[in-house]
Amino acid sequence: MEILRVELGNRSYPILIGQGLLGERALFEQHLPARDLLVVSNTVVAPLYLGQLESSLRPRRVLTTILPDGESHKTLANVARVLDVLVANRFGRDCAVVALGGGVVGDMAGFAAATYQRGVAFVQVPTTLLAQVDSSVGGKTGVNHPGGKNLIGAFHQPVAVVADTRTLATLPPRELRAGLAEVIKYGLICDAGFFAWLEANIEALMAGDGTALAHVIRRSCEIKSAIVGRDEREQGDRALLNLGHTFGHAIESATRYTEWLHGEAVGAGLVMAARMSCESGLLASEELERVIRLVARTGLPTHVANVGPEAALEHMRIDKKVQAGRIRLVLLRGIGTAFVTADYAEAFLRRTLAAHLG
Amino acid sequence: MEILRVELGNRSYPILIGQGLLGERALFEQHLPARDLLVVSNTVVAPLYLGQLESSLRPRRVLTTILPDGESHKTLANVARVLDVLVANRFGRDCAVVALGGGVVGDMAGFAAATYQRGVAFVQVPTTLLAQVDSSVGGKTGVNHPGGKNLIGAFHQPVAVVADTRTLATLPPRELRAGLAEVIKYGLICDAGFFAWLEANIEALMAGDGTALAHVIRRSCEIKSAIVGRDEREQGDRALLNLGHTFGHAIESATRYTEWLHGEAVGAGLVMAARMSCESGLLASEELERVIRLVARTGLPTHVANVGPEAALEHMRIDKKVQAGRIRLVLLRGIGTAFVTADYAEAFLRRTLAAHLG
Repeated sequence: MEILRVELGNRSYPILIGQGLLGERALFEQHLPARDLLVVSNTVVAPLYLGQLESSLRPRRVLTTILPDGESHKTLANVARVLDVLVANRFGRDCAVVALGGGVVGDMAGFAAATYQRGVAFVQVPTTLLAQVDSSVGGKTGVNHPGGKNLIGAFHQPVAVVADTRTLATLPPRELRAGLAEVIKYGLICDAGFFAWLEANIEALMAGDGTALAHVIRRSCEIKSAIVGRDEREQGDRALLNLGHTFGHAIESATRYTEWLHGEAVGAGLVMAARMSCESGLLASEELERVIRLVARTGLPTHVANVGPEAALEHMRIDKKVQAGRIRLVLLRGIGTAFVTADYAEAFLRRTLAAHLG
Repeated sequence: MEILRVELGNRSYPILIGQGLLGERALFEQHLPARDLLVVSNTVVAPLYLGQLESSLRPRRVLTTILPDGESHKTLANVARVLDVLVANRFGRDCAVVALGGGVVGDMAGFAAATYQRGVAFVQVPTTLLAQVDSSVGGKTGVNHPGGKNLIGAFHQPVAVVADTRTLATLPPRELRAGLAEVIKYGLICDAGFFAWLEANIEALMAGDGTALAHVIRRSCEIKSAIVGRDEREQGDRALLNLGHTFGHAIESATRYTEWLHGEAVGAGLVMAARMSCESGLLASEELERVIRLVARTGLPTHVANVGPEAALEHMRIDKKVQAGRIRLVLLRGIGTAFVTADYAEAFLRRTLAAHLG
């Protein structure tokens, strides 16, 4: 088992990464002191892993709430269902919520934990690559609104993240690829060496090679926890983690969260961020080609036909990254060097959208 | 105008208290830098003060949402309405929410601000005595759940509190009395001199004497901001502010928030906390009598006939103050000296409930 720490003063917490952690009762006893626990999972993950997790959590009181699977179900109504269960069972402020599943489950369980009695403990047990490398770390919780992605939510840090890499064995290939989009993102924003390593090892990763996957999970969590430790509430550096996400959120919103996985939309978004950087004269065209090639080799979309450029622009305007009416974007000066800006020519943005959408 | 400060590091903010502040445009320009503003008010307060506030906020973009009046409307569904307006009008993360009204409006507007885009600025403009002395200060936001009071919410500090004492002129006497319950609470928890001053001046306060009201608003905000500055998230001292509230919340919940104002329930709750302290041998019976007398002179209930002791106990068990299954209570060692405990005889609690309920 490897242990990383997210350093946030009295809200610091460990990220535990290893094979078979779901079955380690001592680990949950150590990191989760609550006696009343609500495990939130979904209809796909629960049949696979809920039994094992429950027996690791007993003999404490363990209740479960199973939500429908998929980003289109990440709604305030489903969070209200979790809150209803907590109230109905008279859980006190000293209870804990455990998220067992991917990013959607983690975001909703975390938001319920953030708002129940103004905040109770929660533990992330991510079972997808995307959740293990990204969404389970950093305390962003929330739900979608018909008007836009993640528009309702809270910052609420978990007390621990338990990433059992064995759960990736049952992950559908499409979900694995979606997770790799976020991994590629880390290389692009701050680690050119890691990006090159991904170029050399992408086939092994897609084949589910355990050693290669363990490496990308650790390196991704290292990068993310360092950034979150510097800037918990996204006043500065943390915004770099949104590379590709403003484009990606627009794709998700425009297709009502039903057509593309978050990671797939991010994959296309990374290509668009690189294209826009190239159009703006910041990124060399060879580097743009490397980005497109790696995203394509990962089996992620580089072109999204079912969203038009105008529709995407509409959705980008309600994204959280809008400030003083300007859409803020993360762009690249090179592979491994990202920055945030609202100072760009609208024409480059339109040309970028036209090149990869519709 | 008087200015107090709530000291919370980079989340510190001023409390501005004075006559006619609603009309002072310069003050809102200074303390509220956002260009997009959503004013949340209710059907009673809006006709009286919304026009004046709006003209003080212009020429910025000012939208309004008018919610129904009353504690029974403090629901997640109404917060969702506020969020819908923010999304529909494409408000960015740099917008602000302004709460114009009493505690119910402040709690809901604050919770919407806490959760919109994971937190936007908000300003409290309290128009009731209860909101000016208590609920607008300290960052507790949230809504009720059918299962219990304030069970869903967040800590989210305002960027400023603007208390225009002139708004108290239109406050119904019943609302004025409800606010005085919280004022009496401050004397009981930490200021015996203030409690004695209230005994000497309660008639002037109930008659709406401006000087007397200004004094209690300032002193109440001083006490509350000092406690919140020491313990923002209620890990310790802040729990003292809940004196009478566990009893009061049970009365409110048991009557579905329709029979008693929050302050009225707190009035009865203060008497019950004092009774329980006396039963436990902590508080002299003369001091209990002083508490009962002052609450009664204020026109607040000392006995609540339409809630039975058993029903109240049921509702107390789901209150946020329950820890490890024990109901934590704030009790008195004397007027001006309160403490939190879960170590008391259940018989005293039952005797207390029987004496003042049913």
